[in-house]
Amino acid sequence: MPRRIVIVGNGSAGASIAFSARKNDRTAEITVLERFPYPTYSKCALPFVIEGTIDSFQTITVFSHEFYRSQKINLINGATVTRVVPDEKKVIYKDAGGEKALAYDALALTLGGWPRVPKMPGCDLDGVFTLRTIGDGERILAAVRNAKRAVVNGASFIGLEVAEAFVRRGLETTIVVRSRMLRTMIDADFSRELQEHMIRHNCKVVQGKTVDAVVGAGGKVKAAVVGGEEIPTDLVAMCTGVAPVIDIAKEAGVEIGSTGGMVVDRTMRTRVPDIYTGGDCAEDRFGLMGFPFISLLGTVATRQGVVAGMNMVGVHAYAPRFYNSAIMKLFGLQIGSVGLTTDLAQEHGLKPESIKVMHSTLPHYYPGGKPIAVKLLAHPETRKLVGAQVMAEETVPETINTLALAIERGMTAAELSMADFCYAPPCADIWAPAAVAAQGLDRKFAAKARRKA
Amino acid sequence: MPRRIVIVGNGSAGASIAFSARKNDRTAEITVLERFPYPTYSKCALPFVIEGTIDSFQTITVFSHEFYRSQKINLINGATVTRVVPDEKKVIYKDAGGEKALAYDALALTLGGWPRVPKMPGCDLDGVFTLRTIGDGERILAAVRNAKRAVVNGASFIGLEVAEAFVRRGLETTIVVRSRMLRTMIDADFSRELQEHMIRHNCKVVQGKTVDAVVGAGGKVKAAVVGGEEIPTDLVAMCTGVAPVIDIAKEAGVEIGSTGGMVVDRTMRTRVPDIYTGGDCAEDRFGLMGFPFISLLGTVATRQGVVAGMNMVGVHAYAPRFYNSAIMKLFGLQIGSVGLTTDLAQEHGLKPESIKVMHSTLPHYYPGGKPIAVKLLAHPETRKLVGAQVMAEETVPETINTLALAIERGMTAAELSMADFCYAPPCADIWAPAAVAAQGLDRKFAAKARRKA
Repeated sequence: MPRRIVIVGNGSAGASIAFSARKNDRTAEITVLERFPYPTYSKCALPFVIEGTIDSFQTITVFSHEFYRSQKINLINGATVTRVVPDEKKVIYKDAGGEKALAYDALALTLGGWPRVPKMPGCDLDGVFTLRTIGDGERILAAVRNAKRAVVNGASFIGLEVAEAFVRRGLETTIVVRSRMLRTMIDADFSRELQEHMIRHNCKVVQGKTVDAVVGAGGKVKAAVVGGEEIPTDLVAMCTGVAPVIDIAKEAGVEIGSTGGMVVDRTMRTRVPDIYTGGDCAEDRFGLMGFPFISLLGTVATRQGVVAGMNMVGVHAYAPRFYNSAIMKLFGLQIGSVGLTTDLAQEHGLKPESIKVMHSTLPHYYPGGKPIAVKLLAHPETRKLVGAQVMAEETVPETINTLALAIERGMTAAELSMADFCYAPPCADIWAPAAVAAQGLDRKFAAKARRKA
Repeated sequence: MPRRIVIVGNGSAGASIAFSARKNDRTAEITVLERFPYPTYSKCALPFVIEGTIDSFQTITVFSHEFYRSQKINLINGATVTRVVPDEKKVIYKDAGGEKALAYDALALTLGGWPRVPKMPGCDLDGVFTLRTIGDGERILAAVRNAKRAVVNGASFIGLEVAEAFVRRGLETTIVVRSRMLRTMIDADFSRELQEHMIRHNCKVVQGKTVDAVVGAGGKVKAAVVGGEEIPTDLVAMCTGVAPVIDIAKEAGVEIGSTGGMVVDRTMRTRVPDIYTGGDCAEDRFGLMGFPFISLLGTVATRQGVVAGMNMVGVHAYAPRFYNSAIMKLFGLQIGSVGLTTDLAQEHGLKPESIKVMHSTLPHYYPGGKPIAVKLLAHPETRKLVGAQVMAEETVPETINTLALAIERGMTAAELSMADFCYAPPCADIWAPAAVAAQGLDRKFAAKARRKA
């Protein structure tokens, strides 16, 4: 009898599981239950459709309904799972046809994350948005066309990308930043530079505050209340983080960890037999130091999904460790990060040694090089790299990838400083910026050792 | 008494040694003997001055005479070393003031490479050039201004860059390629694509032949003879490789290896006590398989120099292994390579498994992505990566650096395929091109294993 694989959710993790299961089991019956009407699309691309850089929400489809069919995967849209019965190994869901039960041999609950919006007066006014689905994107895009002003509450990835989209759409845009920009991704010095960059590109920024209430007139947003003051606006985007969706998992007995996500082992299985997960609702462990962590990154969800899908059809595999390699681009500036930030390290009891250097993406004698900032963090005792942040107009994504391997492979600052990186005048300087930073960090270690001696 | 350090040659290796020695020994007496009148400059940048992208030969200075002075390093230009007397630990050189002797505690013979020009009729005609020094560059630049046609003999790094420079200067340019373009750097499939690219950018290409003779009139070049046919031309650039300069080293008893370079140990010492070397005249060992190899790369020379300089002042260090990470840009196309090529592997008895994939530098749904070709080579048994070649208009240098670390750290195709690479729609696809290639290679290995089973 063919194996029955059921997956709840068709996001990055769910879709990866489905196609990985199919690749590893030609005969399995694979069903994906998805409450929204969409095929699998890139959530990360939503801000760029609002911005207008990508022409439509159809364009960002990653796996079409046709592709699901071609892979003989039964994607059922409009199906809301109400209950999992692990003892009977079945899932109860509702769709247009009423309540149905579906038996599984292996089940994946990739329920994703959901915008965490602080309860506040005016939250349900017309013009208050979150951005998680194509539907949200369509509503924001419609609102943008008739708006003159916008307030973005929160300076996470999505908050900053949405702010840029609003500015590019001609809206007078204010970002309300509670602590600092991209706090979970970069250190305070990079946050400051990024904030100056956003201000130079016509974002207004209110720092150290948050939107406490939204006031309206005739059911429509009129202003955001920030620290007692009203900022007049036509729309408010709530970008204050994402919470893992765990409701039906918890009811089914899945263990929930300290981060609020479902606890998994290295095969992406939850604590309940035959129930797997991955993505924004899965509590995995950070590749360094091993503390519980939800990455919220599509890359991590996708790789977790590949592994979960293999294990669900009996092909044993372990999820690769993740180091939170992340990149974004704001008004032409690429900001990348991998590994621990200083804050995250210190939260977990590690005080890293660090250095920040300014270099150029090309040699000084070749025209057109762009300034590049590289920050490296290393373990104070082992000197192994534990984190990196890079900011420049170009070369950042691949530099982050290089540094991700350096961190994953446990390289020290000294080792990275002498790595065999390439050079040619029109392409790269004789010492890569990452190597220059590593040299500086190694010198810092040497000076420290001399002071001790 | 301060240590006496003498370095012959102020190129990448020699200069690196000098500054590394100074960094590690504040009191050493450091003397650099250099036969040419220049400070340390970027040899790799010469074609771009000829091209006009860099405005002058002064611009490509890397370490000025002032910088040498500030570091209390005595750079003596116009000094030709005629003899080394290891038993007396002294160097005999000639400069404007006549013959002089200089005593050393440690000596570096960084004699570099010199263009290897096949003996042929017409070789000394006015209009026949090699490109190795600023003087060569100045002569070529002067000739270019009065020329209409050029022939480049050889399709190495320098040959192709010079050809591009000639085309951009408006010369009708023919490249004569004996075997194939960049044969030591890339595989035949990449060579073919590169050749088509060069032809699309107005280079004429004659393949499978070489310049056999140059004919002239009134002492000036009139034509290059290629396979019995005359190609009319105003100048001929001989770019047929570089030979290590070893004359005075050999006379001093330094062991010369199978490559023609000076044999060194991991400290960059030759077989003669207290004599070190590095760069284009040093026979080091390839980071993979360990066969004798001269890399001819400025990056390798520089890193060897850092290490030689340390050892020369008594700070023990080993040269890092090199994998020949190389990058170049021709008419907007970046071509990168690291590790073994298929030819080089096979020369040394290894038949690598390989894959070539086409991908995009951005996700399909985000505008502006460029096609990128990634070829990966892996050991057929261990599945560890042993080589990589990448070609695209962007992202190649840092992708090569990433792959250099993957190779250096002994990663398998499977490991690379799941590495924590970053993603964002305007920056990079959810699976990096290198990871996509690694997936394909891993599938190839799996299919092979299934066929065997």
